[in-house]
Amino acid sequence: MPYVSAPSDISRDHAAKRLAALATPPGALGRLGELSVWVASVQGQVPPHPVDNVRLVIFAGDHGVAAHGVSAFPPAITGAMVRTFLAGKAGVNALARAHGVAVRVLDLGVDEDFHDLDDGIRSALTAHKVRRSSGAIHLEDALTPDETRAALAAGAAVAREEIEAGAQLMISGDMGIGNTTPAAALVAAALGLPAAEVTGRGTGIDDSALTHKIAVIQAALDRTGARTEDPIETLTALGSSDLAASTGYLLAAAQDGVPVLLDGLMSVACALTADRIEPGAAAWFAAGHRSTEPAQSLALAKMGLEPLLDLGLRLGEGSGAVAAVPLIRSAVALLRDVALLDELEA
Amino acid sequence: MPYVSAPSDISRDHAAKRLAALATPPGALGRLGELSVWVASVQGQVPPHPVDNVRLVIFAGDHGVAAHGVSAFPPAITGAMVRTFLAGKAGVNALARAHGVAVRVLDLGVDEDFHDLDDGIRSALTAHKVRRSSGAIHLEDALTPDETRAALAAGAAVAREEIEAGAQLMISGDMGIGNTTPAAALVAAALGLPAAEVTGRGTGIDDSALTHKIAVIQAALDRTGARTEDPIETLTALGSSDLAASTGYLLAAAQDGVPVLLDGLMSVACALTADRIEPGAAAWFAAGHRSTEPAQSLALAKMGLEPLLDLGLRLGEGSGAVAAVPLIRSAVALLRDVALLDELEA
Repeated sequence: MPYVSAPSDISRDHAAKRLAALATPPGALGRLGELSVWVASVQGQVPPHPVDNVRLVIFAGDHGVAAHGVSAFPPAITGAMVRTFLAGKAGVNALARAHGVAVRVLDLGVDEDFHDLDDGIRSALTAHKVRRSSGAIHLEDALTPDETRAALAAGAAVAREEIEAGAQLMISGDMGIGNTTPAAALVAAALGLPAAEVTGRGTGIDDSALTHKIAVIQAALDRTGARTEDPIETLTALGSSDLAASTGYLLAAAQDGVPVLLDGLMSVACALTADRIEPGAAAWFAAGHRSTEPAQSLALAKMGLEPLLDLGLRLGEGSGAVAAVPLIRSAVALLRDVALLDELEA
Repeated sequence: MPYVSAPSDISRDHAAKRLAALATPPGALGRLGELSVWVASVQGQVPPHPVDNVRLVIFAGDHGVAAHGVSAFPPAITGAMVRTFLAGKAGVNALARAHGVAVRVLDLGVDEDFHDLDDGIRSALTAHKVRRSSGAIHLEDALTPDETRAALAAGAAVAREEIEAGAQLMISGDMGIGNTTPAAALVAAALGLPAAEVTGRGTGIDDSALTHKIAVIQAALDRTGARTEDPIETLTALGSSDLAASTGYLLAAAQDGVPVLLDGLMSVACALTADRIEPGAAAWFAAGHRSTEPAQSLALAKMGLEPLLDLGLRLGEGSGAVAAVPLIRSAVALLRDVALLDELEA
């Protein structure tokens, strides 16, 4: 696999000098000033280009563990929500239309075959499908090693299609009932933490279901043992085809030098896994929204990332990142368009 | 003066029901869900209309107290920044262009006459000018009672011009070296707090200047005494023509039932003053960005408002509110465009 290079130090330094030379009080642009310097460094361009072409890919899949009492919703919702994305009627569709973000949904491992859909729509949706559902991770591996490789490659191929289409900023979204369980397990494995420290309520389970979910994740970690030391083995044991594909997508973005705005737990768990596979990948990532899931904050802290928004969203789908896209555009506009103090004094 | 009516309870209830009926998990839209219900209640419309026409008015003025060591910048910067707004090169101009917000700058009390500007531009800029600068509030009243009345009326007239131009959401911005001193004094007067609890560093004063600024604000409060019990007397004693005009503008928006997105300390101090003049005005206001100035958080808490963003901006100008405008649009898009669960199941 190709290495990940670092964003441009030269552009970062040049952008920081431009930021300091703007006709604004020192530090007055706060996080937007810092963000503008990051955008310049990942673009290798000062001032940064406008970020018009923003592309979200939603990786959908089911999870064997969802049959074991870890979610407030039945697995059939996964396919129903895929149809809602295709109809443009889900939350993330509404946000994406409002902010000019392209949306693509892919079935990597939904536990149905979508035979009711038109052939063209169905074949685009399932073009990268790896399998139906995944193993229940507290009992068995989620994937075979071949499936993990196929999913990582599928995600990378999708990323390159999006980059070919002109992506200036990429987002990975998720859909899959039960997916906070494998995602939290990936974070626990990466950080060497017990299940109790990473487990959250997902879309809204009660106290007794939370206790059960912690036990399921701990059993999955115990079953996997020292294999968690390898990030790709970790995806095989604890992940799923949608999470592995999302990891491959984020890794390919970093390899190709295209910045990513991360969403909630699934997106961030995959980003952390990508950064384990290729250390340095996280330099290409910014964080859109603080999740209520503890694993997301832990993984972001490990990568040195601080979310831009904290609005209590727990919708998934990439929605928190899409809601934060205008802040990237704000940051770019400030570093591009504000007068330099020198110009005013001239 | 006309009374402020309440936003529509019927629309709020109807919007809350629609929010609960969306095909999303309960509460999954977080703050954006709450915000969408507020927009529906202030529009009296469910689902709410798109918020396309957003209008910022920047109220500029100088402050006599700025000659007394309360700011890191010299008063001449006020006029220089007014010219930068007119040239479209300030931070808020960059943000406003990025997010489709109309910007208008008005000189209410800048301590110069702008004779270098073209006649048309100068006459539009100074059409509502009340006076040059204001009294140094620790030594004397900021304004005469007639000047306060004129400034309140000017702000109301400006608001009605913006509403006539189709404003669906209004923002008040500020420019004036030294203006955090009178604004913090207005908040202290409204909340009955000592200067030490409300005073912040503005655009960046050091510890010894902060100690001095606290003493200046406390002297102003002590000088004003029981006159702080009346909000209009408080503007006369502790305000300025730009702050009084901004208060009149926000009050007129509330009277005419047009929602407002508040910015930093100046905008929020004026909002709190408007809510003192006409209790209930605050129901028409939402908060865009958390200021680092303690008086802003205190005033927002008093009005029951929680900011959408906390990005460490301390630029003033209305910039924090303009950066938050896309979140209003996100909220509206969600309540308008997401499928209802009933539709999916049908």
